[in-house]
Parts: sequence; structure tokens; C-alpha cells
Amino acid sequence: MIKRTAFFVSDGTGITAGALGKLLEHFPSTHFTQVRLPFTNTLEKIKLAQEAIVHATEEDGGRPVVIMTLGDIALRNSLKQCNAYFIDLFNTFIDPLGLELDQKPLTGAGIAHSVMGSSYNERMEAINFTLNHDDGMTNNGLEEAEVILVGVSRCGKTPTSVYLAMQFGVKAANYPLIPEDFERGTLPAVLHKHIGKIFGLTIKAERLHAVRNERRAGSFYASLDNCRQEIATAETLMRNAGITWADSTSRSVEELSAIILEKMRHPAISK
Amino acid sequence: MIKRTAFFVSDGTGITAGALGKLLEHFPSTHFTQVRLPFTNTLEKIKLAQEAIVHATEEDGGRPVVIMTLGDIALRNSLKQCNAYFIDLFNTFIDPLGLELDQKPLTGAGIAHSVMGSSYNERMEAINFTLNHDDGMTNNGLEEAEVILVGVSRCGKTPTSVYLAMQFGVKAANYPLIPEDFERGTLPAVLHKHIGKIFGLTIKAERLHAVRNERRAGSFYASLDNCRQEIATAETLMRNAGITWADSTSRSVEELSAIILEKMRHPAISK
Repeated sequence: MIKRTAFFVSDGTGITAGALGKLLEHFPSTHFTQVRLPFTNTLEKIKLAQEAIVHATEEDGGRPVVIMTLGDIALRNSLKQCNAYFIDLFNTFIDPLGLELDQKPLTGAGIAHSVMGSSYNERMEAINFTLNHDDGMTNNGLEEAEVILVGVSRCGKTPTSVYLAMQFGVKAANYPLIPEDFERGTLPAVLHKHIGKIFGLTIKAERLHAVRNERRAGSFYASLDNCRQEIATAETLMRNAGITWADSTSRSVEELSAIILEKMRHPAISK
Repeated sequence: MIKRTAFFVSDGTGITAGALGKLLEHFPSTHFTQVRLPFTNTLEKIKLAQEAIVHATEEDGGRPVVIMTLGDIALRNSLKQCNAYFIDLFNTFIDPLGLELDQKPLTGAGIAHSVMGSSYNERMEAINFTLNHDDGMTNNGLEEAEVILVGVSRCGKTPTSVYLAMQFGVKAANYPLIPEDFERGTLPAVLHKHIGKIFGLTIKAERLHAVRNERRAGSFYASLDNCRQEIATAETLMRNAGITWADSTSRSVEELSAIILEKMRHPAISK
């Protein structure tokens, strides 16, 4: 496996540059060490960044990828004096987009304030909602939920709910399916009236067994037999209730969230 | 304010394209309606995307910005037949980066699997940790925490902790400062041994008053006087304990997280 370092150099928080880190995932056979250098807003700090770049080149035996958002042209040109593969978001994206929109882009610290609008407040409210409605904690306010995730314990409901709230401002509750539900063979009564916004998660028995074993090694709860039994019963239960579900075994929360949103917005399309 | 639509068109989940949405925040005087079109992997779906682009152009009175990650060249070229400002991540970034790395980039559904490595598992574990250590819920396992946020109730500790966990895999606990602590004039005893990883949040009294009023309108808890008093006492308490803090009033969780990480990695630098 090839080893490279990816630097994210920004005069602000580095949030924009950091978001571009997703691009590196298109190259799974390179192992990237990711280094964030936020608040790089003086020539002195640019010098430190350059030293780090030179050092990483020696360590890795290959030049680093430098993803940069520096509003100041002098700082920008100064950083580019060293040998690296530069992805300059101002030159490549932001300045050309400014021409298209006929607007001068904001830079640095100005950005943070611009994101504090209504969609930001919605995201913060969604996070609070999701934390208060994790793991069936309360039935109060479920009518406010936009999505209710159900599934067996430890199948990935919590991280997926949190991601939906944090990233998309979606009020996502989650509700575990437990032995009591399996015996009765139906969804918890409180969920019946919310059936249109329920989405199921399932998982492979071997994976669930491994995950549960980390928590309660050797328990009946974690045993492969019990995992198999719970999953089969939960899937029957979801099938009977007409709930769409997705398998979380080899999907990231990002992917699960995209699937859930797609389904919630186009309820006719089944994944 | 100018009105434009931003489309994120992807043959996969649209996560990479969506991350680029951050670039739009550099243009706060344009109002962007953001439309996500994930799983656009057939010519039929490309056609639907084009219809949406044409429709948005008419609605907005200006052509949309289309951020696209389509691995298939035929689909890519087909989409570009309509009039829009295209940001083609494959042409601009991914393919050139592939040349630099001498690797063929993964596309579409392949990506999700590549992110499921150890850093992914760390993020999921951090989310569980953070949710279990929200709002001083338990003192068990605080030695595992990498960061402990403190501050008055409703100053932004929870969303910031969740962001640190979700985005960076940082195990972030949070602990409220409450009237009992103010009377005693010191941090809760359980926190004394963790002083090196505590970071404080504070907030302007007017903002706290507004936030608390949404929850408990007209209460003593939400009154401007009580908010002023709590904040002043909390700041004195943090100052005496030698804790660095940041003001959350006009900072996003993204910005607060960047400041906290910077401080935690360079404890000598105070922000």
C-alpha cells in the first residue's frame, strides 16, 4: 500500500478544506495520513506548514497532497513554493464560482457566521431531538420525528440517527426491537400510528455477534444463535408491517443516511 | 439576495458531492436551494436531473450550480448537455489526483466500503461514548474521554461533543456547570483529575436567555438576570481552574470543534 500525507491548510477552521478529504476515499489503495493545519494565517505559520510538508515527503517517500483554502494571495503563493500536489480551492473552485455569481467570496473567519442561519439552527434542534429520542428513551414527541429507525439492539440505529440529524437536520428517533416485541410478533403499539416514517435496519448475524461480544462477551444476548434468532424475527416483523429496511453490515452511516432520505422522499421507491 | 439552486448529482450516495456544499458558504449573498440527487446511475435518471435543472433555471432566473460525481463518462457527458455551471469533481479533482497517485479511482458504490476501516469504527465508538457521557450522565469511563466540555446549561456542549465524535472520532464527554457548583465555587470533584482535557464553553447572556426561553419561557432559569449571573460565575470558576474556553454565541459547532482540537493538540496555545 502506498503511503502519502494529506494536508488541509486553511486560514480559518479548515472545514471547507477538510470536507474535500472525502475525495481521498476514491483511492483506497493509498494510505493517507491526514494532517489538519487550521488558522494558518501568517507567513510564520505558512513556514511551519512547509516544514511539515518537507518532512512528510521524506517520511512517505512521495510528495503530499495539499488541499488548501487561503484567501490571501501572498500566503497562497508562499505556501506553493514547496514541492507538493496542491489542490487550491480558491483558484480552482471558489474564484471561478465567484465570477459565475458575480460576487466576491468571503474568506477566513467570515464564513462561520454565514452558516449560522435557520438551517444551522434546525440542525442543532435536530441533534437535541435525536439525543432525546435515542433507543426508545421516550414516546413523547414522536409525532415530531421525521424518521423513526427500528431494528435489533446494536444494529447501527444510534450512529445513523445522529448522522441524519447532524448532517441533514432531520429529526430522527430510534426504537429498538426487543424480545418482548418478538414474543408478541408486532411492532410496539406506540409505533403503529407512525408507520409511514419508520425505516428498518438489519445486520448479518455474524457481524452482530461480533459487535455484541465486544460489550457482553459470552452472554446469551451476544451468542450467534440468539443473534440469528433475533434478526430473523425482526425481519419477519418488519416484513409483516410493510417496513422497508436496509442492511447495515457493510454500509457506512453516510450511505445508510442517503438510502433512508431517498426512501423517505420517494416512498414509492424501495431499495 | 440572488436566488440560485445547487444540485448535487451522484451515481452513489452523493456524500462526496454534498461535502462540496461547504464551498457555497463563501457566497452568503446568494441564497442556494440545495437539491440532492443521489443514485443517479441511469440515462433515465440523468434525464430527470436535466428536467429539474431546466425547471430551477426558470424559477430562479439564473442557471444552477451543479456539483457532480459521475464515474461513467457517458452519463457525465449526457448531464452536461444542459445549461448550468458544472463543477465536475471527476474531471477537476479525482482524475488528476489519480494521475498523481498513479491509481484508477474507485467510483459509485465501491466508495462506501472503503470508508469502513479502523477510523470508521473509531468514529462509531466515539459516538456511542459521547452519547453515554452527555450532560454529566455518568462519571464512569471519564478517563477514556479525550475531551470534556464544561459550561452552563444550553451553551452548546451537546452538539459540539456530537460533532467532535461524528466528524473526528474524538471521545468527547460533556458536563454541565450547575447552581450547586456555583455555590461551592469549584468544578465538580470528579473533574479535578481530568483538568488537562477540559475545555470550557461560554455564551453571551442575551443569547442564552433567548435559547432557554424557548424551552422554559418566563422561568427564573431562563431570566436574563439569572443567565448573566450563571455565566459570570461559570467564567470565574473556569478562570480559577485554569481552563481555556471559547464563546459559542456566534460560532458554529464546526468552528468550535476546530478551536477545541487546535487547543487540545497544542495545549500551550490559548485561543
